[in-house]
Amino acid sequence: MIFRQLFESLSSTYTYLIGDEETGQAILIDPVISAMQRDLAEVHRLGLTLAYTVDTHIHADHITAALELKRTVGSKIAAPAYDRLPCADVGIEEGVPFSLGGITLQPLHTPGHTAGHFAYVLGERVFTGDALLIDGCGRTDFQNGDADTLYKSVHDKLFTLPEDTLVYPGHDYQQRFVSSIAQEKRRNPRLGNDKTLEEFRDIMANLHLPYPRFIDYAVPGNQQCGVCPCELPEDLIRYCNQMTQSQQG
Amino acid sequence: MIFRQLFESLSSTYTYLIGDEETGQAILIDPVISAMQRDLAEVHRLGLTLAYTVDTHIHADHITAALELKRTVGSKIAAPAYDRLPCADVGIEEGVPFSLGGITLQPLHTPGHTAGHFAYVLGERVFTGDALLIDGCGRTDFQNGDADTLYKSVHDKLFTLPEDTLVYPGHDYQQRFVSSIAQEKRRNPRLGNDKTLEEFRDIMANLHLPYPRFIDYAVPGNQQCGVCPCELPEDLIRYCNQMTQSQQG
Repeated sequence: MIFRQLFESLSSTYTYLIGDEETGQAILIDPVISAMQRDLAEVHRLGLTLAYTVDTHIHADHITAALELKRTVGSKIAAPAYDRLPCADVGIEEGVPFSLGGITLQPLHTPGHTAGHFAYVLGERVFTGDALLIDGCGRTDFQNGDADTLYKSVHDKLFTLPEDTLVYPGHDYQQRFVSSIAQEKRRNPRLGNDKTLEEFRDIMANLHLPYPRFIDYAVPGNQQCGVCPCELPEDLIRYCNQMTQSQQG
Repeated sequence: MIFRQLFESLSSTYTYLIGDEETGQAILIDPVISAMQRDLAEVHRLGLTLAYTVDTHIHADHITAALELKRTVGSKIAAPAYDRLPCADVGIEEGVPFSLGGITLQPLHTPGHTAGHFAYVLGERVFTGDALLIDGCGRTDFQNGDADTLYKSVHDKLFTLPEDTLVYPGHDYQQRFVSSIAQEKRRNPRLGNDKTLEEFRDIMANLHLPYPRFIDYAVPGNQQCGVCPCELPEDLIRYCNQMTQSQQG
Protein backbone atom coordinates (compact mmCIF):
# COMPACT_ATOMS: atom_id res chain seq x y z
CA MET A 1 0.00 0.00 0.00
CA ILE A 2 1.15 3.51 -0.83
CA PHE A 3 0.42 6.25 1.69
CA ARG A 4 0.99 10.00 1.52
CA GLN A 5 -0.10 12.76 3.90
CA LEU A 6 -0.56 16.01 1.97
CA PHE A 7 -1.12 19.46 3.46
CA GLU A 8 -3.22 22.36 2.16
CA SER A 9 -1.96 25.44 3.91
CA LEU A 10 -4.85 27.90 3.41
CA SER A 11 -7.24 25.82 5.50
CA SER A 12 -4.56 23.70 7.23
CA THR A 13 -6.26 20.59 5.86
CA TYR A 14 -4.66 17.16 5.56
CA THR A 15 -5.52 15.17 2.46
CA TYR A 16 -4.61 11.49 2.46
CA LEU A 17 -3.52 9.63 -0.65
CA ILE A 18 -3.89 5.85 -0.45
CA GLY A 19 -2.70 3.79 -3.37
CA ASP A 20 -3.12 0.11 -4.14
CA GLU A 21 0.04 -1.17 -5.82
CA GLU A 22 -1.71 -4.22 -7.29
CA THR A 23 -4.44 -2.42 -9.20
CA GLY A 24 -2.67 0.94 -9.55
CA GLN A 25 -5.73 2.71 -8.20
CA ALA A 26 -5.81 5.45 -5.62
CA ILE A 27 -8.19 7.13 -3.16
CA LEU A 28 -7.95 10.68 -1.89
CA ILE A 29 -9.52 11.35 1.50
CA ASP A 30 -10.66 14.97 1.95
CA PRO A 31 -9.04 16.58 -1.12
CA VAL A 32 -9.14 20.40 -1.24
CA ILE A 33 -10.00 22.20 -4.46
CA SER A 34 -7.12 24.67 -4.28
CA ALA A 35 -4.58 21.84 -3.98
CA MET A 36 -6.19 19.61 -6.58
CA GLN A 37 -3.46 19.89 -9.21
CA ARG A 38 -0.75 19.19 -6.64
CA ASP A 39 -2.66 16.10 -5.42
CA LEU A 40 -3.26 14.82 -8.95
CA ALA A 41 0.39 15.31 -9.84
CA GLU A 42 1.36 13.22 -6.81
CA VAL A 43 -1.10 10.49 -7.78
CA HIS A 44 0.38 10.37 -11.27
CA ARG A 45 4.00 10.62 -10.07
CA LEU A 46 3.35 7.46 -8.09
CA GLY A 47 2.08 5.73 -11.23
CA LEU A 48 -1.49 5.60 -9.94
CA THR A 49 -4.89 6.59 -11.28
CA LEU A 50 -7.45 8.24 -9.06
CA ALA A 51 -10.48 6.00 -8.62
CA TYR A 52 -12.32 7.63 -5.70
CA THR A 53 -12.49 10.66 -3.51
CA VAL A 54 -13.84 10.04 -0.01
CA ASP A 55 -14.92 12.88 2.26
CA THR A 56 -15.24 12.59 6.03
CA HIS A 57 -17.97 15.22 6.24
CA ILE A 58 -19.42 18.40 4.73
CA HIS A 59 -16.59 20.83 5.36
CA ALA A 60 -17.19 24.41 6.44
CA ASP A 61 -13.67 25.79 5.94
CA HIS A 62 -12.73 24.72 2.42
CA ILE A 63 -14.25 23.40 -0.79
CA THR A 64 -13.82 19.70 -1.49
CA ALA A 65 -12.13 18.82 -4.79
CA ALA A 66 -14.45 15.82 -5.25
CA LEU A 67 -16.52 17.22 -8.14
CA GLU A 68 -13.62 18.91 -9.93
CA LEU A 69 -11.59 15.71 -9.74
CA LYS A 70 -14.54 13.76 -11.14
CA ARG A 71 -14.79 16.22 -14.02
CA THR A 72 -11.05 16.18 -14.64
CA VAL A 73 -10.06 12.52 -14.27
CA GLY A 74 -13.36 10.67 -13.86
CA SER A 75 -12.92 9.66 -10.23
CA LYS A 76 -16.06 8.64 -8.36
CA ILE A 77 -17.36 10.44 -5.30
CA ALA A 78 -17.90 8.64 -1.99
CA ALA A 79 -19.49 10.53 0.90
CA PRO A 80 -21.45 9.70 4.04
CA ALA A 81 -24.89 8.37 3.04
CA TYR A 82 -26.30 10.21 6.06
CA ASP A 83 -25.94 13.53 4.20
CA ARG A 84 -27.90 12.28 1.15
CA LEU A 85 -25.81 14.22 -1.35
CA PRO A 86 -27.37 13.80 -4.83
CA CYS A 87 -23.91 14.30 -6.35
CA ALA A 88 -22.31 11.31 -4.56
CA ASP A 89 -21.75 8.05 -6.45
CA VAL A 90 -21.42 5.97 -3.27
CA GLY A 91 -23.05 6.56 0.11
CA ILE A 92 -20.82 5.43 2.97
CA GLU A 93 -22.42 3.63 5.90
CA GLU A 94 -21.05 2.21 9.11
CA GLY A 95 -20.66 -1.56 8.96
CA VAL A 96 -20.24 -1.57 5.19
CA PRO A 97 -16.51 -1.67 4.33
CA PHE A 98 -15.46 0.56 1.47
CA SER A 99 -13.03 -1.45 -0.66
CA LEU A 100 -10.84 -0.68 -3.65
CA GLY A 101 -8.48 -3.48 -4.61
CA GLY A 102 -6.39 -4.26 -1.57
CA ILE A 103 -7.52 -1.14 0.30
CA THR A 104 -10.40 -1.48 2.75
CA LEU A 105 -11.72 1.43 4.77
CA GLN A 106 -13.92 0.60 7.75
CA PRO A 107 -16.31 3.55 8.13
CA LEU A 108 -17.25 4.71 11.64
CA HIS A 109 -20.13 7.14 12.05
CA THR A 110 -18.68 9.74 14.43
CA PRO A 111 -21.22 12.59 14.68
CA GLY A 112 -20.79 15.65 16.89
CA HIS A 113 -18.73 18.02 14.73
CA THR A 114 -21.35 17.52 12.04
CA ALA A 115 -24.26 15.10 12.22
CA GLY A 116 -23.08 13.09 9.22
CA HIS A 117 -19.36 12.92 10.11
CA PHE A 118 -17.46 9.69 9.44
CA ALA A 119 -14.00 8.46 10.42
CA TYR A 120 -12.27 5.73 8.40
CA VAL A 121 -10.13 2.94 9.80
CA LEU A 122 -7.48 1.53 7.47
CA GLY A 123 -5.50 -1.20 9.21
CA GLU A 124 -3.33 0.46 11.85
CA ARG A 125 -4.50 3.95 10.87
CA VAL A 126 -7.64 5.95 11.51
CA PHE A 127 -8.52 9.07 9.56
CA THR A 128 -10.44 11.03 12.16
CA GLY A 129 -11.56 14.04 10.10
CA ASP A 130 -12.58 16.80 12.51
CA ALA A 131 -14.03 14.49 15.18
CA LEU A 132 -10.62 14.09 16.83
CA LEU A 133 -7.66 16.36 16.20
CA ILE A 134 -4.20 16.13 17.81
CA ASP A 135 -4.72 17.62 21.29
CA GLY A 136 -8.09 18.93 20.14
CA CYS A 137 -11.32 18.41 18.19
CA GLY A 138 -13.56 20.20 15.71
CA ARG A 139 -16.06 22.75 16.96
CA THR A 140 -19.59 21.64 17.74
CA ASP A 141 -21.64 24.80 17.24
CA PHE A 142 -22.71 24.47 13.58
CA GLN A 143 -24.10 21.89 11.15
CA ASN A 144 -26.04 20.04 13.85
CA GLY A 145 -22.86 19.75 15.89
CA ASP A 146 -23.32 18.69 19.49
CA ALA A 147 -20.77 18.32 22.29
CA ASP A 148 -22.48 15.39 24.02
CA THR A 149 -22.66 13.53 20.73
CA LEU A 150 -19.01 14.20 19.88
CA TYR A 151 -17.86 13.01 23.33
CA LYS A 152 -19.74 9.77 22.79
CA SER A 153 -18.33 9.31 19.25
CA VAL A 154 -14.77 9.78 20.46
CA HIS A 155 -15.01 7.72 23.66
CA ASP A 156 -17.24 4.92 22.42
CA LYS A 157 -15.83 4.52 18.91
CA LEU A 158 -12.39 6.09 18.39
CA PHE A 159 -11.02 5.41 21.88
CA THR A 160 -12.04 1.75 21.68
CA LEU A 161 -9.67 1.18 18.75
CA PRO A 162 -6.31 -0.48 19.64
CA GLU A 163 -4.04 1.95 21.51
CA ASP A 164 -1.32 1.85 18.84
CA THR A 165 -3.76 2.93 16.10
CA LEU A 166 -2.29 5.96 14.35
CA VAL A 167 -4.50 9.06 14.43
CA TYR A 168 -4.38 11.04 11.19
CA PRO A 169 -6.46 14.18 11.69
CA GLY A 170 -8.38 16.33 9.21
CA HIS A 171 -6.46 19.44 10.22
CA ASP A 172 -3.57 20.65 12.27
CA TYR A 173 -2.68 24.25 12.90
CA GLN A 174 0.69 23.67 14.55
CA GLN A 175 2.45 21.42 12.01
CA ARG A 176 1.78 18.24 13.91
CA PHE A 177 1.11 15.36 11.55
CA VAL A 178 0.22 12.22 13.47
CA SER A 179 -0.72 10.96 16.90
CA SER A 180 -2.04 7.68 18.33
CA ILE A 181 -5.16 6.60 20.19
CA ALA A 182 -2.97 6.05 23.28
CA GLN A 183 -1.68 9.62 23.02
CA GLU A 184 -5.11 11.22 22.62
CA LYS A 185 -6.53 9.21 25.53
CA ARG A 186 -3.71 10.42 27.75
CA ARG A 187 -3.24 14.03 26.78
CA ASN A 188 -6.04 15.43 24.64
CA PRO A 189 -6.94 18.50 26.72
CA ARG A 190 -10.61 18.34 25.72
CA LEU A 191 -11.37 14.67 25.27
CA GLY A 192 -8.66 12.76 27.15
CA ASN A 193 -9.63 10.08 29.64
CA ASP A 194 -9.27 12.53 32.51
CA LYS A 195 -12.12 14.66 31.11
CA THR A 196 -15.75 13.95 31.97
CA LEU A 197 -18.65 14.64 29.65
CA GLU A 198 -19.58 17.60 31.86
CA GLU A 199 -16.08 19.07 31.54
CA PHE A 200 -16.09 18.59 27.77
CA ARG A 201 -19.53 20.18 27.46
CA ASP A 202 -18.25 23.14 29.47
CA ILE A 203 -15.06 23.50 27.39
CA MET A 204 -16.99 23.46 24.10
CA ALA A 205 -19.60 25.94 25.37
CA ASN A 206 -16.90 28.43 26.30
CA LEU A 207 -14.56 28.45 23.30
CA HIS A 208 -15.81 31.87 22.17
CA LEU A 209 -14.80 31.19 18.57
CA PRO A 210 -15.65 33.67 15.82
CA TYR A 211 -18.31 32.89 13.22
CA PRO A 212 -16.63 30.62 10.62
CA ARG A 213 -15.39 32.80 7.82
CA PHE A 214 -16.07 30.41 4.95
CA ILE A 215 -19.10 28.50 6.18
CA ASP A 216 -21.75 30.36 4.18
CA TYR A 217 -20.20 29.47 0.86
CA ALA A 218 -18.42 26.27 1.83
CA VAL A 219 -21.39 24.30 3.17
CA PRO A 220 -23.70 24.85 0.16
CA GLY A 221 -20.72 24.36 -2.18
CA ASN A 222 -19.81 21.07 -0.50
CA GLN A 223 -23.40 19.88 -0.46
CA GLN A 224 -22.93 19.89 -4.24
CA CYS A 225 -19.65 17.92 -3.81
CA GLY A 226 -17.50 20.99 -4.34
CA VAL A 227 -19.00 23.86 -6.30
CA CYS A 228 -17.47 27.29 -6.03
CA PRO A 229 -20.05 30.01 -5.48
CA CYS A 230 -20.33 32.44 -8.38
CA GLU A 231 -19.24 35.39 -6.32
CA LEU A 232 -16.56 35.01 -3.71
CA PRO A 233 -14.79 37.55 -1.57
CA GLU A 234 -11.48 38.49 -3.20
CA ASP A 235 -9.35 36.57 -0.71
CA LEU A 236 -11.32 33.36 -1.18
CA ILE A 237 -11.12 33.18 -4.92
CA ARG A 238 -7.92 31.24 -4.81
CA TYR A 239 -9.73 28.45 -2.97
CA CYS A 240 -11.70 27.77 -6.05
CA ASN A 241 -11.68 27.99 -9.81
CA GLN A 242 -9.04 30.62 -10.31
CA MET A 243 -6.56 28.85 -8.06
CA THR A 244 -7.07 25.66 -9.98
CA GLN A 245 -6.62 27.50 -13.27
CA SER A 246 -3.51 29.35 -12.19
CA GLN A 247 -1.89 26.11 -11.04
CA GLN A 248 -2.59 24.60 -14.43
CA GLY A 249 -1.15 27.57 -16.28
CA MET B 1 3.50 -7.90 11.66
CA ILE B 2 2.52 -7.25 15.25
CA PHE B 3 3.53 -3.93 16.79
CA ARG B 4 3.20 -2.60 20.33
CA GLN B 5 4.55 0.59 21.88
CA LEU B 6 5.14 0.03 25.62
CA PHE B 7 5.98 2.70 28.19
CA GLU B 8 8.20 2.48 31.29
CA SER B 9 7.21 5.37 33.50
CA LEU B 10 10.24 5.69 35.84
CA SER B 11 12.57 6.65 33.00
CA SER B 12 9.82 7.59 30.50
CA THR B 13 11.27 5.02 28.09
CA TYR B 14 9.45 3.52 25.12
CA THR B 15 10.06 -0.17 24.46
CA TYR B 16 8.90 -1.51 21.10
CA LEU B 17 7.58 -5.03 20.63
CA ILE B 18 7.71 -6.31 17.07
CA GLY B 19 6.28 -9.72 16.34
CA ASP B 20 6.45 -11.87 13.23
CA GLU B 21 3.14 -13.70 12.83
CA GLU B 22 4.64 -16.35 10.52
CA THR B 23 7.41 -17.58 12.80
CA GLY B 24 5.83 -16.52 16.11
CA GLN B 25 9.05 -14.78 17.09
CA ALA B 26 9.40 -11.33 18.61
CA ILE B 27 11.98 -8.58 19.10
CA LEU B 28 12.01 -6.03 21.91
CA ILE B 29 13.76 -2.75 21.15
CA ASP B 30 15.14 -1.01 24.26
CA PRO B 31 13.50 -3.13 26.99
CA VAL B 32 13.84 -1.78 30.55
CA ILE B 33 14.68 -4.12 33.41
CA SER B 34 11.98 -2.82 35.74
CA ALA B 35 9.26 -3.46 33.12
CA MET B 36 10.63 -6.81 32.01
CA GLN B 37 7.83 -8.96 33.40
CA ARG B 38 5.19 -6.69 31.87
CA ASP B 39 6.93 -6.87 28.49
CA LEU B 40 7.31 -10.65 28.65
CA ALA B 41 3.65 -11.04 29.60
CA GLU B 42 2.68 -9.00 26.53
CA VAL B 43 4.93 -11.10 24.27
CA HIS B 44 3.28 -14.28 25.59
CA ARG B 45 -0.24 -12.84 25.51
CA LEU B 46 0.28 -12.26 21.80
CA GLY B 47 1.31 -15.90 21.36
CA LEU B 48 4.91 -15.00 20.59
CA THR B 49 8.31 -16.07 21.89
CA LEU B 50 11.06 -13.53 22.44
CA ALA B 51 13.96 -14.19 20.09
CA TYR B 52 16.03 -11.00 20.38
CA THR B 53 16.46 -7.81 22.31
CA VAL B 54 17.93 -4.93 20.33
CA ASP B 55 19.28 -1.81 22.03
CA THR B 56 19.72 1.53 20.29
CA HIS B 57 22.63 2.57 22.52
CA ILE B 58 24.20 2.33 25.97
CA HIS B 59 21.57 4.02 28.08
CA ALA B 60 22.44 6.36 30.93
CA ASP B 61 19.00 6.63 32.54
CA HIS B 62 17.86 3.03 32.97
CA ILE B 63 19.15 -0.54 32.94
CA THR B 64 18.44 -2.57 29.81
CA ALA B 65 16.57 -5.83 30.35
CA ALA B 66 18.68 -7.57 27.67
CA LEU B 67 20.71 -9.81 29.98
CA GLU B 68 17.84 -10.64 32.37
CA LEU B 69 15.63 -11.57 29.42
CA LYS B 70 18.39 -13.78 28.05
CA ARG B 71 18.67 -15.53 31.42
CA THR B 72 14.91 -15.84 31.77
CA VAL B 73 13.71 -16.86 28.29
CA GLY B 74 16.92 -17.40 26.31
CA SER B 75 16.56 -14.41 23.98
CA LYS B 76 19.71 -13.28 22.19
CA ILE B 77 21.23 -9.86 22.62
CA ALA B 78 21.81 -7.53 19.65
CA ALA B 79 23.63 -4.24 20.21
CA PRO B 80 25.67 -1.79 18.12
CA ALA B 81 28.98 -3.44 17.15
CA TYR B 82 30.62 -0.04 17.62
CA ASP B 83 30.38 -0.44 21.41
CA ARG B 84 32.14 -3.85 21.38
CA LEU B 85 30.08 -5.29 24.21
CA PRO B 86 31.44 -8.74 25.09
CA CYS B 87 27.96 -9.74 26.31
CA ALA B 88 26.25 -9.14 22.92
CA ASP B 89 25.42 -12.09 20.68
CA VAL B 90 25.10 -9.96 17.54
CA GLY B 91 26.93 -6.74 16.70
CA ILE B 92 24.73 -4.38 14.66
CA GLU B 93 26.34 -2.48 11.78
CA GLU B 94 25.00 0.03 9.28
CA GLY B 95 24.38 -1.53 5.89
CA VAL B 96 23.79 -4.98 7.37
CA PRO B 97 20.04 -5.58 7.75
CA PHE B 98 19.00 -7.29 10.96
CA SER B 99 16.37 -9.86 10.04
CA LEU B 100 14.12 -12.18 12.00
CA GLY B 101 11.54 -14.03 9.89
CA GLY B 102 9.54 -11.38 8.08
CA ILE B 103 10.94 -8.52 10.17
CA THR B 104 13.89 -6.58 8.80
CA LEU B 105 15.47 -3.68 10.65
CA GLN B 106 17.73 -1.38 8.63
CA PRO B 107 20.31 -0.05 11.09
CA LEU B 108 21.47 3.56 10.78
CA HIS B 109 24.51 4.71 12.73
CA THR B 110 23.32 7.97 14.28
CA PRO B 111 26.05 9.15 16.68
CA GLY B 112 25.91 12.37 18.67
CA HIS B 113 23.90 11.44 21.77
CA THR B 114 26.37 8.60 22.24
CA ALA B 115 29.14 7.64 19.82
CA GLY B 116 27.70 4.19 19.17
CA HIS B 117 24.04 5.17 18.84
CA PHE B 118 21.90 3.44 16.21
CA ALA B 119 18.41 4.08 14.85
CA TYR B 120 16.45 1.29 13.18
CA VAL B 121 14.19 1.62 10.15
CA LEU B 122 11.35 -0.90 9.89
CA GLY B 123 9.30 -0.23 6.75
CA GLU B 124 7.34 2.97 7.36
CA ARG B 125 8.67 3.35 10.91
CA VAL B 126 11.96 4.52 12.36
CA PHE B 127 12.95 3.87 15.96
CA THR B 128 15.09 6.87 16.68
CA GLY B 129 16.31 6.08 20.21
CA ASP B 130 17.61 9.29 21.77
CA ALA B 131 19.02 10.78 18.55
CA LEU B 132 15.66 12.35 17.69
CA LEU B 133 12.80 12.83 20.14
CA ILE B 134 9.41 14.44 19.44
CA ASP B 135 10.16 18.19 19.45
CA GLY B 136 13.58 17.41 20.95
CA CYS B 137 16.68 15.21 21.10
CA GLY B 138 18.91 13.48 23.62
CA ARG B 139 21.63 15.47 25.38
CA THR B 140 25.12 15.54 23.92
CA ASP B 141 27.33 16.17 26.93
CA PHE B 142 28.22 12.60 28.00
CA GLN B 143 29.34 9.30 26.49
CA ASN B 144 31.28 10.95 23.68
CA GLY B 145 28.19 12.90 22.76
CA ASP B 146 28.72 15.79 20.36
CA ALA B 147 26.26 18.38 19.04
CA ASP B 148 27.86 18.73 15.61
CA THR B 149 27.79 14.98 15.16
CA LEU B 150 24.15 14.70 16.25
CA TYR B 151 23.09 17.47 13.88
CA LYS B 152 24.75 15.60 11.02
CA SER B 153 23.15 12.27 12.02
CA VAL B 154 19.68 13.78 12.13
CA HIS B 155 19.92 15.93 9.00
CA ASP B 156 21.93 13.56 6.81
CA LYS B 157 20.35 10.27 7.85
CA LEU B 158 17.00 10.61 9.63
CA PHE B 159 15.74 13.65 7.71
CA THR B 160 16.52 11.98 4.38
CA LEU B 161 13.99 9.22 5.09
CA PRO B 162 10.59 9.60 3.34
CA GLU B 163 8.54 12.39 4.96
CA ASP B 164 5.71 10.06 6.01
CA THR B 165 8.09 7.81 7.97
CA LEU B 166 6.74 7.47 11.50
CA VAL B 167 9.15 8.59 14.22
CA TYR B 168 9.00 6.37 17.32
CA PRO B 169 11.31 7.92 19.93
CA GLY B 170 13.25 6.32 22.79
CA HIS B 171 11.57 8.58 25.35
CA ASP B 172 8.86 11.11 25.79
CA TYR B 173 8.22 13.13 28.90
CA GLN B 174 4.89 14.63 27.85
CA GLN B 175 2.89 11.55 26.85
CA ARG B 176 3.44 12.04 23.14
CA PHE B 177 3.82 8.71 21.37
CA VAL B 178 4.58 9.22 17.71
CA SER B 179 5.58 11.83 15.17
CA SER B 180 6.76 11.80 11.55
CA ILE B 181 9.88 12.90 9.71
CA ALA B 182 7.80 15.67 8.10
CA GLN B 183 6.71 16.89 11.53
CA GLU B 184 10.22 16.92 13.03
CA LYS B 185 11.63 18.73 9.99
CA ARG B 186 8.98 21.42 10.35
CA ARG B 187 8.68 21.95 14.07
CA ASN B 188 11.49 20.34 16.09
CA PRO B 189 12.65 23.39 18.07
CA ARG B 190 16.27 22.19 18.15
CA LEU B 191 16.78 20.31 14.92
CA GLY B 192 14.05 21.47 12.54
CA ASN B 193 14.95 22.66 9.07
CA ASP B 194 14.86 26.27 10.24
CA LYS B 195 17.78 25.64 12.63
CA THR B 196 21.38 25.93 11.48
CA LEU B 197 24.23 23.87 12.90
CA GLU B 198 25.43 26.97 14.72
CA GLU B 199 22.03 27.48 16.33
CA PHE B 200 21.84 23.83 17.37
CA ARG B 201 25.35 23.94 18.81
CA ASP B 202 24.35 26.99 20.82
CA ILE B 203 21.10 25.42 22.07
CA MET B 204 22.89 22.26 23.24
CA ALA B 205 25.68 24.22 24.92
CA ASN B 206 23.19 26.21 26.96
CA LEU B 207 20.73 23.60 28.24
CA HIS B 208 22.16 23.78 31.78
CA LEU B 209 20.96 20.27 32.58
CA PRO B 210 21.86 18.65 35.89
CA TYR B 211 24.36 15.79 36.08
CA PRO B 212 22.43 12.63 35.04
CA ARG B 213 21.23 10.99 38.20
CA PHE B 214 21.63 7.38 37.10
CA ILE B 215 24.59 7.56 34.73
CA ASP B 216 27.26 6.27 37.10
CA TYR B 217 25.53 2.96 37.63
CA ALA B 218 23.59 2.72 34.38
CA VAL B 219 26.48 3.01 31.93
CA PRO B 220 28.70 0.31 33.50
CA GLY B 221 25.60 -1.84 34.08
CA ASN B 222 24.54 -1.51 30.44
CA GLN B 223 28.08 -2.16 29.19
CA GLN B 224 27.44 -5.60 30.67
CA CYS B 225 24.06 -5.76 28.82
CA GLY B 226 22.08 -4.94 31.96
CA VAL B 227 23.69 -5.75 35.28
CA CYS B 228 22.41 -4.08 38.41
CA PRO B 229 25.17 -2.66 40.57
CA CYS B 230 25.49 -4.42 43.94
CA GLU B 231 24.67 -1.31 45.88
CA LEU B 232 22.09 1.12 44.66
CA PRO B 233 20.56 4.17 46.23
CA GLU B 234 17.26 3.23 47.87
CA ASP B 235 15.11 4.91 45.20
CA LEU B 236 16.86 3.12 42.36
CA ILE B 237 16.48 -0.39 43.66
CA ARG B 238 13.16 -0.83 41.95
CA TYR B 239 14.85 -0.32 38.62
CA CYS B 240 16.67 -3.56 39.05
CA ASN B 241 16.54 -6.93 40.69
CA GLN B 242 14.08 -6.23 43.43
CA MET B 243 11.57 -4.66 41.08
CA THR B 244 11.79 -7.68 38.84
CA GLN B 245 11.32 -10.00 41.83
CA SER B 246 8.40 -8.07 43.23
CA GLN B 247 6.66 -8.14 39.85
CA GLN B 248 7.12 -11.91 39.74
CA GLY B 249 5.77 -12.38 43.28
